[in-house]
Amino acid sequence: MNPAVHGVGTSHFGRRPGTDLVSLAWDAVSDALADAGGGPVDAVWVGTVFAPAGVAQRVLRAMGITGIPVVTVENACASGTTAFAEACEAVRTGRYGRVLALGIEQMSAAFDGAITPERTDPEGATGLALPALYAMAATRYLHDGAVTREQLAAVAVKNHAHALHNPQAQYAGRYTVEEVLASRMIADPLTLLQCCPTSDGAAAAVVAASSGGVREVGVRGIALRSGAPWGRRSPHVWGHDVVRDTAADAYAAAGLHAATDVDVAEVHDAFTIGEIVTTEALGLAAPGEGGKAAGTGVTTLGGTHPVNPSGGLLSRGHPLGATGLAQVAEIVRQLRGDAGGRQVDGARIGLVETMGGGVSALDGNACVVAVLEAP
Amino acid sequence: MNPAVHGVGTSHFGRRPGTDLVSLAWDAVSDALADAGGGPVDAVWVGTVFAPAGVAQRVLRAMGITGIPVVTVENACASGTTAFAEACEAVRTGRYGRVLALGIEQMSAAFDGAITPERTDPEGATGLALPALYAMAATRYLHDGAVTREQLAAVAVKNHAHALHNPQAQYAGRYTVEEVLASRMIADPLTLLQCCPTSDGAAAAVVAASSGGVREVGVRGIALRSGAPWGRRSPHVWGHDVVRDTAADAYAAAGLHAATDVDVAEVHDAFTIGEIVTTEALGLAAPGEGGKAAGTGVTTLGGTHPVNPSGGLLSRGHPLGATGLAQVAEIVRQLRGDAGGRQVDGARIGLVETMGGGVSALDGNACVVAVLEAP
Repeated sequence: MNPAVHGVGTSHFGRRPGTDLVSLAWDAVSDALADAGGGPVDAVWVGTVFAPAGVAQRVLRAMGITGIPVVTVENACASGTTAFAEACEAVRTGRYGRVLALGIEQMSAAFDGAITPERTDPEGATGLALPALYAMAATRYLHDGAVTREQLAAVAVKNHAHALHNPQAQYAGRYTVEEVLASRMIADPLTLLQCCPTSDGAAAAVVAASSGGVREVGVRGIALRSGAPWGRRSPHVWGHDVVRDTAADAYAAAGLHAATDVDVAEVHDAFTIGEIVTTEALGLAAPGEGGKAAGTGVTTLGGTHPVNPSGGLLSRGHPLGATGLAQVAEIVRQLRGDAGGRQVDGARIGLVETMGGGVSALDGNACVVAVLEAP
Repeated sequence: MNPAVHGVGTSHFGRRPGTDLVSLAWDAVSDALADAGGGPVDAVWVGTVFAPAGVAQRVLRAMGITGIPVVTVENACASGTTAFAEACEAVRTGRYGRVLALGIEQMSAAFDGAITPERTDPEGATGLALPALYAMAATRYLHDGAVTREQLAAVAVKNHAHALHNPQAQYAGRYTVEEVLASRMIADPLTLLQCCPTSDGAAAAVVAASSGGVREVGVRGIALRSGAPWGRRSPHVWGHDVVRDTAADAYAAAGLHAATDVDVAEVHDAFTIGEIVTTEALGLAAPGEGGKAAGTGVTTLGGTHPVNPSGGLLSRGHPLGATGLAQVAEIVRQLRGDAGGRQVDGARIGLVETMGGGVSALDGNACVVAVLEAP
């Protein structure tokens, strides 16, 4: 069976400490089921990182979804796209007919700022919280002349402006490059507006076999990998190679000849440098050209390769387990022509990429890349 | 492809607060890979409930297993069997050729006694920790005349005696029914020796297509479900129906005509009453006859339907995420004739059942049943 996305839903993303996970999930799941035309599902995969054990059954019970197979998956920031990948695989193989993929996270319940690294990991032992890990990559790019501070800031300008057209985004705003650079320094050279916020939210998708419906978005190819040990085998910065390799798997599965065939992409911009490295690793920009693509508007709405029209993690927000399915929801809306003021005209091929975790000195502990196609 | 288990490994189970998860996993994975004849795996599923996010990649990196797809799953006490089910499915559909399923848990890092229920769940709001939830089932059985206190205790006597032949078990011992009943009361009528201990451990299995090898244990059928809301639709005690329904799915998948064709079973005996209810739900004992089966030796080694020859959760121990794969390892050893002093003579068909969670007033939040077959 060729899997297709039949419905998507997203809660409003934001810092919502007074809201429980059931309420967040309700918004996403009810919208996704309604968008898919109602009716039951046969199985559920739930992605989350920090929610307590048993949360999947707890939120699903509240919605009357019980008695069917439910599997909760954790794969760092790629948990939501892992749930989506498993749902697509279950449909592809005929294991289940109609599968719900749900991502949920309430970061505000666990953190008031950056995620605390495990003390026994190399990152934790050396004080490298994620902003610092990304800042190392940015510093390397600056040193190599592969990016400028202004190009880094341009990613934040772009994604915050994109989010002005996304009513479910956590933040949005018209900033100048100077304003981004003048915001509070978090981990040099990354300023506050170049870092994703602490977010709560949920997102969901209903996956079933493609039946040629006019609102079905086909899943042409999807791939999942974990990273190799970082720094031993590669001249690239942290996170590059796992994205490149996972994308190669996804492009092969999708029969995609060139990354430049992608009309619109949602990628993992937890920090501005992340989007730049990722666009290069995905082949959306040539090596060393990712910064220039951001600075010259190539990746802006209206440019030739729009990236993160939803506002991305930087502005839409980054509730870890929900992020991947919010990316899927955005690409589905784009490929249906339903994206309103942030619509990429005539988008036919869309890409989702999520890369998670700096855990254990790996080059990312999980990456998922999916290629979706318009109805 | 028909999936088969090519290798299994288990760490020693016990309270090991000074040991880290990497060491526990190392024992299980290195034994499983060696048992499978060495060589790489193409993907890994890891089951755990309370280990921190990212633990899978952390322990796998330490063993040099990186760069491949890794998915961590949580399904309460059925997390390990969920990882096993996903590994079997990946092999069945040809998604991956050779898959490692790993279960890990260090309960001593999180709890010093019973698991604390979520305060917002009905169990938590009413003070029903898991011993109390199981005690309610036992009380109902006692009231209905479906079991006696002595029959409950007989399960503990049996499983602790079985574990005398399992060098990796946490506890073992020759007890009398009177000694079990005289041990400290935990939740009336369940005394200390009728409750599983706090355990740390890991267990693993390598799954690949069946190639007719003399040490390969075939996976004839496997099924996964979550529970329905408890108490509304069923005259049975908590946990009965989800086991019955999941078993029906597994038996159908395995083409098993009668549960009594099962020669040896490892089932979820977190508390003595659990084994009794489960043997009835599985069809290994007639309704209301589970207690008698334990009391008369039917389910003892040497009886007609041996249950939990490894010592079960009660005596081998219950590191949540590892339990399901320890059950698989035991059945694989039994079906190969490798179980030493606890061998069930001539066992050809083995069964694994794990039922997890009392979360959210569901009739268990996950259950997995697998039917395995001798080489």
